[in-house]
Amino acid sequence: MFSPQDTADILIEALPYIQKFSGKTIVIKYGGNAMTTPELKAKVMQDITLMKFVGIHPVIVHGGGPDITGFLKKVGKKSEFVSGLRVTDEETMEIVEMVLIGKVNSEIVNLLNRSGNRAIGLSGKDASLIQAKKKLAEVHDNGKTEKVDIGHVGEVAKIREEVVNDLIEQGYIPVIAPVGVGEDGEAYNINADYVAAEVAGALNAEKLLLLTDVEGIYRDFEDKSSFISSLTGKEARQYIEDGIIAGGMIPKVESCLTALDEGAHKTAIIDGRLPHSLLLELFTSQGIGTEIVK
Amino acid sequence: MFSPQDTADILIEALPYIQKFSGKTIVIKYGGNAMTTPELKAKVMQDITLMKFVGIHPVIVHGGGPDITGFLKKVGKKSEFVSGLRVTDEETMEIVEMVLIGKVNSEIVNLLNRSGNRAIGLSGKDASLIQAKKKLAEVHDNGKTEKVDIGHVGEVAKIREEVVNDLIEQGYIPVIAPVGVGEDGEAYNINADYVAAEVAGALNAEKLLLLTDVEGIYRDFEDKSSFISSLTGKEARQYIEDGIIAGGMIPKVESCLTALDEGAHKTAIIDGRLPHSLLLELFTSQGIGTEIVK
Amino acid sequence: MFSPQDTADILIEALPYIQKFSGKTIVIKYGGNAMTTPELKAKVMQDITLMKFVGIHPVIVHGGGPDITGFLKKVGKKSEFVSGLRVTDEETMEIVEMVLIGKVNSEIVNLLNRSGNRAIGLSGKDASLIQAKKKLAEVHDNGKTEKVDIGHVGEVAKIREEVVNDLIEQGYIPVIAPVGVGEDGEAYNINADYVAAEVAGALNAEKLLLLTDVEGIYRDFEDKSSFISSLTGKEARQYIEDGIIAGGMIPKVESCLTALDEGAHKTAIIDGRLPHSLLLELFTSQGIGTEIVK
Amino acid sequence: MFSPQDTADILIEALPYIQKFSGKTIVIKYGGNAMTTPELKAKVMQDITLMKFVGIHPVIVHGGGPDITGFLKKVGKKSEFVSGLRVTDEETMEIVEMVLIGKVNSEIVNLLNRSGNRAIGLSGKDASLIQAKKKLAEVHDNGKTEKVDIGHVGEVAKIREEVVNDLIEQGYIPVIAPVGVGEDGEAYNINADYVAAEVAGALNAEKLLLLTDVEGIYRDFEDKSSFISSLTGKEARQYIEDGIIAGGMIPKVESCLTALDEGAHKTAIIDGRLPHSLLLELFTSQGIGTEIVK
Amino acid sequence: MFSPQDTADILIEALPYIQKFSGKTIVIKYGGNAMTTPELKAKVMQDITLMKFVGIHPVIVHGGGPDITGFLKKVGKKSEFVSGLRVTDEETMEIVEMVLIGKVNSEIVNLLNRSGNRAIGLSGKDASLIQAKKKLAEVHDNGKTEKVDIGHVGEVAKIREEVVNDLIEQGYIPVIAPVGVGEDGEAYNINADYVAAEVAGALNAEKLLLLTDVEGIYRDFEDKSSFISSLTGKEARQYIEDGIIAGGMIPKVESCLTALDEGAHKTAIIDGRLPHSLLLELFTSQGIGTEIVK
Amino acid sequence: MFSPQDTADILIEALPYIQKFSGKTIVIKYGGNAMTTPELKAKVMQDITLMKFVGIHPVIVHGGGPDITGFLKKVGKKSEFVSGLRVTDEETMEIVEMVLIGKVNSEIVNLLNRSGNRAIGLSGKDASLIQAKKKLAEVHDNGKTEKVDIGHVGEVAKIREEVVNDLIEQGYIPVIAPVGVGEDGEAYNINADYVAAEVAGALNAEKLLLLTDVEGIYRDFEDKSSFISSLTGKEARQYIEDGIIAGGMIPKVESCLTALDEGAHKTAIIDGRLPHSLLLELFTSQGIGTEIVK
Repeated sequence: MFSPQDTADILIEALPYIQKFSGKTIVIKYGGNAMTTPELKAKVMQDITLMKFVGIHPVIVHGGGPDITGFLKKVGKKSEFVSGLRVTDEETMEIVEMVLIGKVNSEIVNLLNRSGNRAIGLSGKDASLIQAKKKLAEVHDNGKTEKVDIGHVGEVAKIREEVVNDLIEQGYIPVIAPVGVGEDGEAYNINADYVAAEVAGALNAEKLLLLTDVEGIYRDFEDKSSFISSLTGKEARQYIEDGIIAGGMIPKVESCLTALDEGAHKTAIIDGRLPHSLLLELFTSQGIGTEIVK
Repeated sequence: MFSPQDTADILIEALPYIQKFSGKTIVIKYGGNAMTTPELKAKVMQDITLMKFVGIHPVIVHGGGPDITGFLKKVGKKSEFVSGLRVTDEETMEIVEMVLIGKVNSEIVNLLNRSGNRAIGLSGKDASLIQAKKKLAEVHDNGKTEKVDIGHVGEVAKIREEVVNDLIEQGYIPVIAPVGVGEDGEAYNINADYVAAEVAGALNAEKLLLLTDVEGIYRDFEDKSSFISSLTGKEARQYIEDGIIAGGMIPKVESCLTALDEGAHKTAIIDGRLPHSLLLELFTSQGIGTEIVK
Repeated sequence: MFSPQDTADILIEALPYIQKFSGKTIVIKYGGNAMTTPELKAKVMQDITLMKFVGIHPVIVHGGGPDITGFLKKVGKKSEFVSGLRVTDEETMEIVEMVLIGKVNSEIVNLLNRSGNRAIGLSGKDASLIQAKKKLAEVHDNGKTEKVDIGHVGEVAKIREEVVNDLIEQGYIPVIAPVGVGEDGEAYNINADYVAAEVAGALNAEKLLLLTDVEGIYRDFEDKSSFISSLTGKEARQYIEDGIIAGGMIPKVESCLTALDEGAHKTAIIDGRLPHSLLLELFTSQGIGTEIVK
Repeated sequence: MFSPQDTADILIEALPYIQKFSGKTIVIKYGGNAMTTPELKAKVMQDITLMKFVGIHPVIVHGGGPDITGFLKKVGKKSEFVSGLRVTDEETMEIVEMVLIGKVNSEIVNLLNRSGNRAIGLSGKDASLIQAKKKLAEVHDNGKTEKVDIGHVGEVAKIREEVVNDLIEQGYIPVIAPVGVGEDGEAYNINADYVAAEVAGALNAEKLLLLTDVEGIYRDFEDKSSFISSLTGKEARQYIEDGIIAGGMIPKVESCLTALDEGAHKTAIIDGRLPHSLLLELFTSQGIGTEIVK
Repeated sequence: MFSPQDTADILIEALPYIQKFSGKTIVIKYGGNAMTTPELKAKVMQDITLMKFVGIHPVIVHGGGPDITGFLKKVGKKSEFVSGLRVTDEETMEIVEMVLIGKVNSEIVNLLNRSGNRAIGLSGKDASLIQAKKKLAEVHDNGKTEKVDIGHVGEVAKIREEVVNDLIEQGYIPVIAPVGVGEDGEAYNINADYVAAEVAGALNAEKLLLLTDVEGIYRDFEDKSSFISSLTGKEARQYIEDGIIAGGMIPKVESCLTALDEGAHKTAIIDGRLPHSLLLELFTSQGIGTEIVK
Repeated sequence: MFSPQDTADILIEALPYIQKFSGKTIVIKYGGNAMTTPELKAKVMQDITLMKFVGIHPVIVHGGGPDITGFLKKVGKKSEFVSGLRVTDEETMEIVEMVLIGKVNSEIVNLLNRSGNRAIGLSGKDASLIQAKKKLAEVHDNGKTEKVDIGHVGEVAKIREEVVNDLIEQGYIPVIAPVGVGEDGEAYNINADYVAAEVAGALNAEKLLLLTDVEGIYRDFEDKSSFISSLTGKEARQYIEDGIIAGGMIPKVESCLTALDEGAHKTAIIDGRLPHSLLLELFTSQGIGTEIVK
């Protein structure tokens, strides 16, 4: 346990970081273990609350894949994927919305408010926050690439960031479900990483933090000493080309690059499995994870 | 079809009503046929849009019983009722939230936005808007009344109306799902009429409009000529005591009385089965339904 | 007579137009029969009131020729014109001001206020709203053009539009008499069409509406089927050159062109003899009169 | 002539008075010689301009009797009076408005603006500023008092002072013509002293200054040494009863009493025949005229 | 050394305290060892900076006795005291001001700004912040109490708290030197504890913190176990009467009582000799020192 | 003595100047006889008060050389100068600060407040208003120029003008002591003329007024008729080159040139020995001193 004097010392150690982020907007992609393990979940809520009360403007974008899969099973629908994207017919989309908005988002909002915040849940339908368009799956077959319509899967066409800023200005924490809305009002299921990236870009966020289930980027995944704590966008693109960044890490890194391109100042892929990973990243000298900057 | 001159004449006829409600808040309990029939639904959206654009501040509170029942059936859960209240165990409550917030609320918000508005969906969890407490069902058996715990069924403890006003002030239309939140963060399913009443009271609304599937109140239901177009709160209480107001009409009338007690200026029970019932009530000389006033 | 349902239907038909003009400034040149026939006058007041209450910012500029002529006769002064412009000696100018400001403007303001508005009358002298300079009459004689000083006849040098905007911002309807003020404080009688045009330009008005006593522009006045419902500024200039637009229509069209040049978005010459011509133009699909756009 | 050093000394002498009135509203009833003699007129304009620029909020209410009489003569109408009130038929009222609003008010506004101000003219019709009701003339005959309807002669029912305050807040000088408007929109000619008093009361003015053609109140008009420089409202009422205050001075004093009753802090009857009487009253130690205070 | 995870844990432990004081004003009487020992001084600056950046509004009132004594010695003036109050002739007062304002205040302001704040120094003369009156020394001699004039020693007559609030509102940290100003502009040396108390009262501060060189109040100073961590104002008064609170502790406690009487919510006498005593008091569960509450 | 009528006439004569400077910021370098002679001092306070109350925003920057020299003597330190700059070791700097901030500034603030203003004293340390860097003395010896470190003598690196504007916006008069603060928090003694110039530039002041002990600039100092009442910056530079402007006048003129370069609109070197020199310069047609303009 810590003595009061320890407390004081540590608060003072954190002060330069608090000063640095004071009044800045930080977008958090919330997902993975940090969203499914109750203990981690509780700690993320504390972290966000602390961020808010030391003068940062946190904006949360969450995923919800496991909950969706779970609920689809419950109603007897099988989850089908094409090139990693969920095939989303109308009935599936209805359930996606119900789970993301009516369950996952609602729960995060509730947890934040119980921690003393004033959080408000938003989906892309609220005030048409996330304008979306259909995204086709790319299927590679025999060296040919075919585009396949897999239903209500979309990508961001435009973020109406004034909605988020209106809420921030009045002291609310916006919590965003990654459901987009098309020109004809149809709903789209969008990858939460990409939504977080576009939101961070549109808000000119100081930082986009992607909570993941990995430690960050390694030059050689087998060699722990090859961990990369910081790289530029240019380097990141080169690493993808060179195959150093590969697999599931590619969409994460691409989200960071998108955020930087659209106006965010910094991004980081951090390990959400660590307790208080947000505070570790923001308020300690070491930081955690891999930072990608312009 | 109408000639342009007819259009002009009718707009001018509506002008005194537009002037009367300009800048006022009107709470609409949206439910019944008006929410289930696609044609009626479209017309309600138009009505609310018109209200907004002629300077009224509409606030929507919606129900969703049929959708909930439908969805519970889908996942193989039977709906059980005690004294008219749905027995709501934890799993049921989760589905209630998903349906009300993730489906019904989301759809209304989307329809309003497609009509050119900027609507934002809220549940009672958002910024702790609807603070709730458990409500026990009253079971009358052999002349005795017993209170029975039927789970996550609640009543309003307090409305944090500043949340609604913050959104109105920034030009948004708030759309509220009747889910309350208890002191320990647990969710409660609350009757939408009562939520609308409490919201109307807390906002000192100019009017609470309950969209129902009846024409209003009759002194003698068999005798169409006995229709009551206006009565005072005092009269209403007497009519309940006298059994003139009975059955399903009682909670509607009680909601009106609650709204008046808590600060609303006027209330009306109107027939949501009529196309454009909101406009008929607000913008024509006859009005429709039964008005209950102080 | 209309049924309530007709009312609702028509209000809804008007909704897209209401949405389109919401929050926009529309300048109305008020004159001709619409200002002299009591029935039409009442209807114009209703139209402007409706405009205001559905969120439009109407600004009125009025003429007053017949009243001036009438009053000059009363005091025994003959009205004399050179090239269509009233010769305006000092004594005449005094009467012009008294009639325009103390009678015509005052009456319009009063009628608007009785309809539930808050209108304030302005002349060009108020806060030096209309800065003017002398305009010489052009007399064509034997192929030569001579410029003749006909006294207090002026043209707009500059509109101080912040005065109008200050009043709009506080919710007032500005009603402007076409009296300008020169550098030495002398008053000038200015053609109301031109004043309206300059005001519309300076305010970047959404639309300038000229209420006239004709239906609009015909390619061939004899052939009703040659009516032109819309033309561009470029076309309008060509039509003037070609003589298709001629006579009293020229200054009307020139006013429209000036307004467009100075910053107004659209203009229209409409038939003020039709009851509710403003509403017909703004809130019905057909519109009326001839629109001139960029 | 004054040396620069004299200028400095006098500015400094005036400083305590400037500080005293800084940010306060002062209502000036403008009339009599100060309004008819060109030299005095110019000096009043300078005085008001100075007041404005040293941080006072001047509000002008003007009369216009001589101009009205002159113009009625011009159009061949005789001026008729009952108990000192002008018999005002419809035609006369029209001319009263034209003269007060279109000539007198317009001229004052113009003069103020040429002095570097931003003045806006108002009549009681503008935004329904002066709500009025009919005033009957009292005719005393054979010891009996009869009330006689003499047409459009009115008294103030209510001042909508927010209109004046709106203009003050935006930096304008309001100039008010004493024309009131009745419930049915009919115009009323109202005594300017009374209008000034009601305006001063409604605005809680720091001071009401009545510019008159007398030096103030004497205990004995023949004895110059009996001049009263200050008296309380109570004393004033006693003096009226005792006949010390009599004749044309009574309505002036009654206006002061009304202003004090309605909320003004101080009042004074000052000699408008003195050049710069406003400055003498406000910015010198002697003051001028007779002050009536609570 | 602490691990990053320790940092996170401690930040989270501090969160409830941060939330509790967010947006509140806390007045700090800064003096004693905390102001003279360089290490302690540095830590106080950090503490205040942290307070500011987690959303608290700190207001500093400082003393400066030792510096004054030192400087007087430098210019060859002896410090003389009557009943514990410094005899303050004109020359001494000049030096008091120079030291308090030009040295002590200036240094604190500078240190705060170097820590990343925007601090502004104020004395009671700035905008007449501390209005003072002369305080006579009470000399007890032979059972008689005599009041003796010892020059420029004063007490607070009135705090113009709007000056402090103006600066807080614009984000500045006000740092106040305890120099008051009398009605004739003469300066007064005032006990800093009392100034802090009056400032805390006038600002309705959440808390007044007196930094002293003792641990707090003991029931029996010899018995460390008799430490009192909290007492009410009523108890405090009783303890003074009973002699439990005595000597130099009396003015400290009286300052707390004054602050509570004038509007502060809580007060505490804390041990400024402890590093980070402000943080220990505000952000740990134990707190330090003795709290005196209503 | 002046008659009331004289007062009025002179106020009116001053009106055009009052109008001209209304709402403008004027920076006054206060020093020389105007700061040491009690009668002149009193008059400067009156002048500034008048400026404030007629709507000007005065900002005062003061020197304090004689007071510093006097106090150094008191503590037995000799004043030493290199190339006209005071050698300022640490101990001297401490006394410079005490005298400038704790004595001179404090006294000016107090005098202004007693005149009915709300003045606040600032040094360059307050909110880091004057960011400074070391200035080396230039010693010319045998045709060579050597730079010598003479301690805490500095020059302006940057003015944080938002601090001054914040205070002006809230109605305060800022009074600035010419103490700057370096990157490491060390204090610097800066020439007040240059501080005033930089402040005037940073604020885009309407005018910088340097109160000096000379009448202004002469082409030939012996020939009173060669007085220059206005010259451009270009001419001023030429005159320096030509030796017409020489000696102590050079830094004054250079300050004016700096102010103009940095954003001030006009500058003037005026004779502070004249009573009310500020008013003479601002509010009379002659003006006084020498104006330097772009």
